[in-house]
Amino acid sequence: TLLWGIEKALTGQDLAGKHVLVTAGPTQEAMDPVRFLSNHSTGKMGYAIAGRAAMRGAEVTLVSGPTALDTPKGVNRVDIRSARDMYDAVLSRAAQQDFIIKAAAVGDYRPAATADEKLKKGDGELNIRLARNPDILAALGADKRPGQLLCGFAMETQNLLDNAESKLRRKNCDMLVANSLRDKGAGFGTDTNIATLLFADGHREQPSIMSKADLADLILDRLLGMSRR
Amino acid sequence: TLLWGIEKALTGQDLAGKHVLVTAGPTQEAMDPVRFLSNHSTGKMGYAIAGRAAMRGAEVTLVSGPTALDTPKGVNRVDIRSARDMYDAVLSRAAQQDFIIKAAAVGDYRPAATADEKLKKGDGELNIRLARNPDILAALGADKRPGQLLCGFAMETQNLLDNAESKLRRKNCDMLVANSLRDKGAGFGTDTNIATLLFADGHREQPSIMSKADLADLILDRLLGMSRR
Repeated sequence: TLLWGIEKALTGQDLAGKHVLVTAGPTQEAMDPVRFLSNHSTGKMGYAIAGRAAMRGAEVTLVSGPTALDTPKGVNRVDIRSARDMYDAVLSRAAQQDFIIKAAAVGDYRPAATADEKLKKGDGELNIRLARNPDILAALGADKRPGQLLCGFAMETQNLLDNAESKLRRKNCDMLVANSLRDKGAGFGTDTNIATLLFADGHREQPSIMSKADLADLILDRLLGMSRR
Repeated sequence: TLLWGIEKALTGQDLAGKHVLVTAGPTQEAMDPVRFLSNHSTGKMGYAIAGRAAMRGAEVTLVSGPTALDTPKGVNRVDIRSARDMYDAVLSRAAQQDFIIKAAAVGDYRPAATADEKLKKGDGELNIRLARNPDILAALGADKRPGQLLCGFAMETQNLLDNAESKLRRKNCDMLVANSLRDKGAGFGTDTNIATLLFADGHREQPSIMSKADLADLILDRLLGMSRR
């Protein structure tokens, strides 16, 4: 805490007064009290953004799915489990935010029914019906207040930039961070990332491989730059 | 390591010469490179058993699904992800074991097909077909060598003891540890456990709530006792 205080005192407080909401980690979608559907997100990218934003003086809320990570210093963390919990946690806090950065890997689908008791296994195959979860990014984009900036993430194994550009437009984002699962040094659980930044004005930026902390700073720099225009 | 050596030197080496295989943690069953089906096991119970067995002098192999836990000192850890990986890792090492303790929460089902690329979401519901995974405990029970002891686990939300007794018989276990998800102080992620031990000779033992380390010692005590008969 002392070291953090010293580092913060030496860091430019260029985000002072900004309210920043970051989402991070996976969601878990329950089939029953034991089983769930999830994904490989570890939360490292979102936690890095939240930590750097707090270090630079922002008021940071981190809405996090289940992860093994420690809460970054100076960050207000809200724990959720399912995509619907995350929807409620984010939407209820959206109005007061200056930047919303959606780094979580939110499950698109949940089991259409969740059993109260552990399902007993049978001998053969089982069919489960999956329902679509609410689209948090689209809801945020549709309801963006003037001056508020929205940053989404896209992770794909193929057609990354086309999918990312389409997502940026459809969801009314100001910026989108695209990363491929196929690049070495990028993706789940790594400490580095290789990303392409796409902007609503059509330009793109392709930084070289960097630590998630450095990429966090770059993302915050770009949002801050846009907020000053 | 020094402290561990001292603690080990002060601990009775009553498992010296025993080969003990422990399974722990959840499995992850892939839908695609991003999504998977899993469960809430954290691995704490199995890691406690592996750690105590090594402390008491056993040669311990820990076959572990994805967990956030450190490998207990003196334990040979084998990492797996899916139930089929666990089946191979356990069955290939079973013949040389004296005790096999199956504390892992192995997924009963996996997506019948795993996509090579991330599945794009559609607008509506999705049906996924789940296939049964191979039954590791049944395979071990069917192929038990003379003198080898097999300990299973059962976790249920209802009809716990009836289900546990049936599982003990069907899988040809020597002992079965039953714990309810409904008891406070038991289940996933806790540091304590409330268990009933069921034995092949029909008797049962119901210790009071205890730490997972103490329950680990009790389980090892009972296996050692049976091995001397």
